[in-house]
Amino acid sequence: MKIMEGGLENIKGFAFSALECGIRYPGRLDYCLMAADHPCSAAGVFTTNQVSAAPVKLCRERIANPVRAILINATNANACTGIQGYHAAEELTGDIAARLGAPAASVLMASTGIIGRQLPFTTMMDAHQKLVESLSRDNGRLIPKAIMTTDTVPKQVCVSFNTSAGTFSMAGTAKGAGMIAPDMATLLCFIISDAPVERRTLAALFRKNIGATLNAITIDGDMSTNDTAIILSPRSDAPLTADGDLNAFEEALHTVLARLSEMLIDDGEGTTKRVRITVKNAKSDADATRIARAIAESLLVKTAFFGNDPNWGRIAAAAGRSGAAVDEQALSISFDDMSLLARGTPVEFDPDGLVKIMAKKTFEVTVDIGLGESGWSILTTDISLDYVRINAEYST
Amino acid sequence: MKIMEGGLENIKGFAFSALECGIRYPGRLDYCLMAADHPCSAAGVFTTNQVSAAPVKLCRERIANPVRAILINATNANACTGIQGYHAAEELTGDIAARLGAPAASVLMASTGIIGRQLPFTTMMDAHQKLVESLSRDNGRLIPKAIMTTDTVPKQVCVSFNTSAGTFSMAGTAKGAGMIAPDMATLLCFIISDAPVERRTLAALFRKNIGATLNAITIDGDMSTNDTAIILSPRSDAPLTADGDLNAFEEALHTVLARLSEMLIDDGEGTTKRVRITVKNAKSDADATRIARAIAESLLVKTAFFGNDPNWGRIAAAAGRSGAAVDEQALSISFDDMSLLARGTPVEFDPDGLVKIMAKKTFEVTVDIGLGESGWSILTTDISLDYVRINAEYST
Repeated sequence: MKIMEGGLENIKGFAFSALECGIRYPGRLDYCLMAADHPCSAAGVFTTNQVSAAPVKLCRERIANPVRAILINATNANACTGIQGYHAAEELTGDIAARLGAPAASVLMASTGIIGRQLPFTTMMDAHQKLVESLSRDNGRLIPKAIMTTDTVPKQVCVSFNTSAGTFSMAGTAKGAGMIAPDMATLLCFIISDAPVERRTLAALFRKNIGATLNAITIDGDMSTNDTAIILSPRSDAPLTADGDLNAFEEALHTVLARLSEMLIDDGEGTTKRVRITVKNAKSDADATRIARAIAESLLVKTAFFGNDPNWGRIAAAAGRSGAAVDEQALSISFDDMSLLARGTPVEFDPDGLVKIMAKKTFEVTVDIGLGESGWSILTTDISLDYVRINAEYST
Repeated sequence: MKIMEGGLENIKGFAFSALECGIRYPGRLDYCLMAADHPCSAAGVFTTNQVSAAPVKLCRERIANPVRAILINATNANACTGIQGYHAAEELTGDIAARLGAPAASVLMASTGIIGRQLPFTTMMDAHQKLVESLSRDNGRLIPKAIMTTDTVPKQVCVSFNTSAGTFSMAGTAKGAGMIAPDMATLLCFIISDAPVERRTLAALFRKNIGATLNAITIDGDMSTNDTAIILSPRSDAPLTADGDLNAFEEALHTVLARLSEMLIDDGEGTTKRVRITVKNAKSDADATRIARAIAESLLVKTAFFGNDPNWGRIAAAAGRSGAAVDEQALSISFDDMSLLARGTPVEFDPDGLVKIMAKKTFEVTVDIGLGESGWSILTTDISLDYVRINAEYST
């Protein structure tokens, strides 16, 4: 497997377009289309929020179909918009499908932006002719930028990999997690490949690899109504089936997802560092996840990270209230290689040394529960003054 | 029932002392004693954090005993201090008990401050003679101040109430919730009364009334290792038992707890407003609580409160991810009297009017789930730039 320059434009069989539609603001790319030359197998992972956006509902209904295109808009989430919002998504995708000469149910949609406002339906319909006319492979370069909201840099990764059927490529793009940029928020992630993989296998591999990547990052624990990750792969009479080939595909997929996850964490305007929280020797997998999340989402832990405050007690307190089995006599905590709590007893430590670790752009906190053999790891951030500033001022 | 001036010093049968021991900083009251003239019935509610401080463990063991005194220190939590920390709490209370001529197991202890450091044991022992010698009823005035950490104002309430056995009084004091001031954090609350109530009744009334007061406030959802609320009432051969008398006692107790809860919420250095989140028509009591907490603890909701950002979609998103049953077609949201979402459909509203509501020092958000008949209400705050500042800089 090899990391390549560029992104979506490297993948044969796809075309793209993006334009300034003026959905909420003038002068920014906010409406785009990713179209496959031929029907694709698709797999998707969507928000588990019970309040979900209209385009998420549409995707859930259509994801098992052969898929021809994904229509994406930024600056309006089309969430909490009732039946009117759902019909808008239906008609917008229906019109695009007609223009592509494809079945209505073969077009997916994803939206990100403010919750509770109707889309400017006519304005968007009026843009469709140009959107379809300007489709080209080279316009793949525009997509990472067109889906951005308060992200500060476009995010894309491209890899190539070898199989018994030849060399294939895979490219992915993602935008700001719900946490960094609240409701122009939402994690959107789109991955395409020219390697043909059968739909059920694609779905299984996608779900599995998201678990340790996109689902193992957190900035503030708020889950968007719009979170959407979709992968497209060409339908073929001869899909990859050999173990070695699927392993190569999965390695490429994991790499693309893991890199995009790090990019998402690193880009928070309101964050200054990336911290890996690793929980070891928990009683069960569920416990390990619960403890890691409680620590990763604790405001007190995150403000301590921001201030380089050598206040490791906050880690112990978060673990203790996580709801997982924790015995403080068995609990050990370290930051990078520095041990701070060893089986319930505080270790004499050099506070200046700890401050030095915490002042780094990235470091690791290891929490050994000492009660079992399960582990989990999650990437988190600090929470800074800018986080509050950005989130207090966003929609006004 | 009547609200009275002053606090603990109004209650007959108790004596108090407080001094500058220098536990962590010089020149501040940090060590104090509340002593009853005669053994009391006691009830306590403690943190449910599995990592709990040594004094909390001690209290849990002793709370059913006749109680003579509560020893309290600020600036050091005596949490994550292993067996050494537990022995320190045992010996400190043992020494106080001996000086009071009381059984060792009749003295409780509460601590608040930084986690993971051993108490300055000798310094504290050396202060005991003065602590016991200076006990007086009038020194009750010092306690609310001596237990403060980053609280900006001392908190106390005193009420009197009539029963068939005559007029009694009740006074309470509390200090900064774990959230405002992280790990010099901890909610401590002490209530005393000269009205005799049998221990089991006292425990039942205390637990019941804390549910809708101290346990229905949140600032950041972080639970301290040291949270402690204790009530003392004189042991008597003729405790209050008549329904009318216990109702009067309970009304006094609820008032004291509710007022202290509001004082705690209002005092956050890092908060600028108090918001009541009321959930109605949820499917079950557990669901109502879960939804109210998810909203009250959402960083995105709290930053919107801070910035007067009329971004009500964040409320819907928090409700949807709470884990409780939520059907967006049945969901309605209003701020004070302004309806924003009615059974899943956004209502046209005047953003300036909403900003005016949110700019108030206190307002109410009502979330109607429309699926049942259960409700719950919680007091929360915004999260401000100062919150991050205070919590990033605290321990260094």
